[in-house]
Amino acid sequence: MNFRMMGRVNAYVLAIEAVLMMPSALVSVIYRERVAAVSIFVSALLTLAAAGILYFITRGARKGMQARDGMVCVGFSWILMSTMGCLPFFLSREIPNFIDALFETVSGFTTTGASILTDVEAMSHGLIFWRSFTHWIGGMGVLVFMLAIVPLSGKNTGFTLHLMRAESPGPDVGKITPRMKDSARSLYLMYIFLTILCFIFLLAGKMPVFGAFCTAFGIAGTGGFGIKADSMLGYSDYLQTVSAVFMLLFGINFTCYYLLAVKREWKAVLKDEELRLYLIFIGGATALITWNITSAAIPARKALHHAFFTVVSIITTSGFATLDFNKWPTFSKVILLFLMFSGACAGSTGGGIKVSRILILFKQLRRSIHQILNPQKIQVVKVNRRTVSETVVTNTSSYLIAYVFIVIVSFLLVSLNPDFSVESNFSAVMCTFNNIGPGLDQVGPTSNFYAYDAFSKIVLTFDMLLGRLEIFPILVLFSRKTWNNAVRHFPEA
Amino acid sequence: MNFRMMGRVNAYVLAIEAVLMMPSALVSVIYRERVAAVSIFVSALLTLAAAGILYFITRGARKGMQARDGMVCVGFSWILMSTMGCLPFFLSREIPNFIDALFETVSGFTTTGASILTDVEAMSHGLIFWRSFTHWIGGMGVLVFMLAIVPLSGKNTGFTLHLMRAESPGPDVGKITPRMKDSARSLYLMYIFLTILCFIFLLAGKMPVFGAFCTAFGIAGTGGFGIKADSMLGYSDYLQTVSAVFMLLFGINFTCYYLLAVKREWKAVLKDEELRLYLIFIGGATALITWNITSAAIPARKALHHAFFTVVSIITTSGFATLDFNKWPTFSKVILLFLMFSGACAGSTGGGIKVSRILILFKQLRRSIHQILNPQKIQVVKVNRRTVSETVVTNTSSYLIAYVFIVIVSFLLVSLNPDFSVESNFSAVMCTFNNIGPGLDQVGPTSNFYAYDAFSKIVLTFDMLLGRLEIFPILVLFSRKTWNNAVRHFPEA
Repeated sequence: MNFRMMGRVNAYVLAIEAVLMMPSALVSVIYRERVAAVSIFVSALLTLAAAGILYFITRGARKGMQARDGMVCVGFSWILMSTMGCLPFFLSREIPNFIDALFETVSGFTTTGASILTDVEAMSHGLIFWRSFTHWIGGMGVLVFMLAIVPLSGKNTGFTLHLMRAESPGPDVGKITPRMKDSARSLYLMYIFLTILCFIFLLAGKMPVFGAFCTAFGIAGTGGFGIKADSMLGYSDYLQTVSAVFMLLFGINFTCYYLLAVKREWKAVLKDEELRLYLIFIGGATALITWNITSAAIPARKALHHAFFTVVSIITTSGFATLDFNKWPTFSKVILLFLMFSGACAGSTGGGIKVSRILILFKQLRRSIHQILNPQKIQVVKVNRRTVSETVVTNTSSYLIAYVFIVIVSFLLVSLNPDFSVESNFSAVMCTFNNIGPGLDQVGPTSNFYAYDAFSKIVLTFDMLLGRLEIFPILVLFSRKTWNNAVRHFPEA
Repeated sequence: MNFRMMGRVNAYVLAIEAVLMMPSALVSVIYRERVAAVSIFVSALLTLAAAGILYFITRGARKGMQARDGMVCVGFSWILMSTMGCLPFFLSREIPNFIDALFETVSGFTTTGASILTDVEAMSHGLIFWRSFTHWIGGMGVLVFMLAIVPLSGKNTGFTLHLMRAESPGPDVGKITPRMKDSARSLYLMYIFLTILCFIFLLAGKMPVFGAFCTAFGIAGTGGFGIKADSMLGYSDYLQTVSAVFMLLFGINFTCYYLLAVKREWKAVLKDEELRLYLIFIGGATALITWNITSAAIPARKALHHAFFTVVSIITTSGFATLDFNKWPTFSKVILLFLMFSGACAGSTGGGIKVSRILILFKQLRRSIHQILNPQKIQVVKVNRRTVSETVVTNTSSYLIAYVFIVIVSFLLVSLNPDFSVESNFSAVMCTFNNIGPGLDQVGPTSNFYAYDAFSKIVLTFDMLLGRLEIFPILVLFSRKTWNNAVRHFPEA
């Protein structure tokens, strides 16, 4: 493995992180929050120092990188980035426990939005800003950001490709432009544009500037950290609807926006199978829940409003709430569990297993049935009329296997804590692993993860990372074989 | 499709079923239960008549059969067999509701053991005997039984192979002897031998003859229907231990017994990876639950006894209970949920996803990770040092996909009933689909499925069939493409 190059990448990532802490520090200064401001500055300096040391150590790195190196590198970056990113909370003592601070930060970067805070409104503005900003940074990915701005790769696109593949969500990350660097840049331009649009719409609904910033970050990253203790319960219908619509938009594959904005290929976008299925899921789930929760006390119009908001919030794995859906009937809660499993589109800021994977899995299953009916005929899996390679099909089912194994193991480990119900634990695992945030029962939208013990928090923190990086980078990072190979080949590395 | 041959096979199956009703009728006569005796006799006559009509219609059938025909045939047989098999309950009015009677019979044949009876001890002996006997019949399979005794196949082993593959559990059913007919016969001989052994051990524990018969059938088929309202709570420690040991034995792949008894290949059996993993699961789960439930009130020895019994009862998907494990701590309940998912060995009478599938899935996942580390190297999946064909690997992951989809859809449908908790519904689906029986919460071991509405009962009945026949025969039976083909080719069929 090319350790030097990995170190170099991590140096850039940390340097970028240090710079990205500055706006939060500025907010602290504006609001005259001395402790918060100093904590953030010191954290930024420490992060910059770490970057400098890494940069110094890794001089003269070769630029070559293999797929495995990309995965290890991305897995390691995220852990490092989270460790440095939690310093502002920890140093300011606003989250005095280190594990809690790490949980909150990983929850931010992975756009989960699960919180251990019992009173978010008591926090300083600077740290609330940083907390929401981590959503925005993590949504599209720091490494993708780095690839967009740092002149690192030169002609070596394999290097960029491996990093981008490892960090971007979805079964098969294609290049949207011939040069990966341009792809990364276009992605971020669209991301910034949509975020600003969302911000403007929120301002138009009379939301204060500070709140609009934080909320826009949370929506863009499909994160879910709110700035109020009751999430979005107190917001106007207009603000709730704007939030829902933008969550929906950020849950769509950004390649669609590229096709629309740059290539003007309307038809290709309208016929995109993943997009259609995503909209079918949202429409179907909204209709079913509206039907299920409409009653004498709740008129249909109000039911539709809350059903749409909640469905979008869960399928995009944001996790904002306009009401306590924990009190809904069982059927609606089970639909939400299914949406948690599904998640949003590949190449969006949403988490979960991704709609395109569900599409591929479903088509693989259909092929197996057809193959029983016609054993002689060789059949391929097609999405959008293009053949999906067998490697992608196999990797997608391996993904499902890994997904199921991780859910089982995490569920077991978290259940060691005797104070939580089966439903709470299961939804806690589903909600962290799928990067959603609030779950059901004891970790429902009006509750939080504070009461879990340290061990469970560590397990759930890992689940968030596994979910955001789509399992394999973290599994590869902790695979014995990776390090056996690495040590054996060290002199060459 | 060869409809005539399918009809002929179904005629034999029904004829066998009619004959197999006779022992129950005899029991009714012995206990002087007039209504039950007449009901069973009439049911047997109706079944025989149906068999006769089918036989008459299907004269001159060609013997050729393809894999798909085998699946459709087996799927259809099981539905037909269950419909006739529920007549004794229905005609005697001991289960006056037809859907309930069908639920109970499918639960018997599929060796699930989920019951809608609120007072089993009020039933007549004849019908309790029939209820338990359906476990025994369903455990090894009626079609396998038919293949063992009816001189049907002649030289056409493809025919026998397809039927046996479709009915026998496991990812890849091999022939244990060169001729399939002999394989079917050896399987049943071992099955009968082990059942008799179990019966003798139960008698030795002073169980009455009638009870020992019914219990032995329930254990052999890893079914779970008891003859007491409190399952095995009232049995002596000896009887409970005997039951647990025999459940464990019936959860092992019968090929292992063949290798032991006929070929004397001790080493091959001891090194069998599936058997090892199965024993590791049992040992591990027992140890963890013992540790978890041992307390001031429950000494370690007693905890070990109940933990072992419950673990074996759940992993073999029997579902007998020696206590209300619903009251156990969350951690132990989650372990039980995992064991429900795992199930017993392939080629046993147990249900679930099967240990060998878990082995193959795990190895597929490991291969995917290794392929990231070494993209150039082509790697195969091996079990017991033999390469598993790619078709089996793909089908195993398709199985997992279908498994997850079915759980989600059933879970949604059952949750339409607002009276049950998320935990109850989830475990109801898991326990019927994996052919276990009692679940958690409102369908726990001290409760039953009576309170569910008719629609949920139909969904759960389907889940039992899907689970026992391992999904594909039922999916193929209800696939539009099957019938499109069939209708198109009807003149040739």
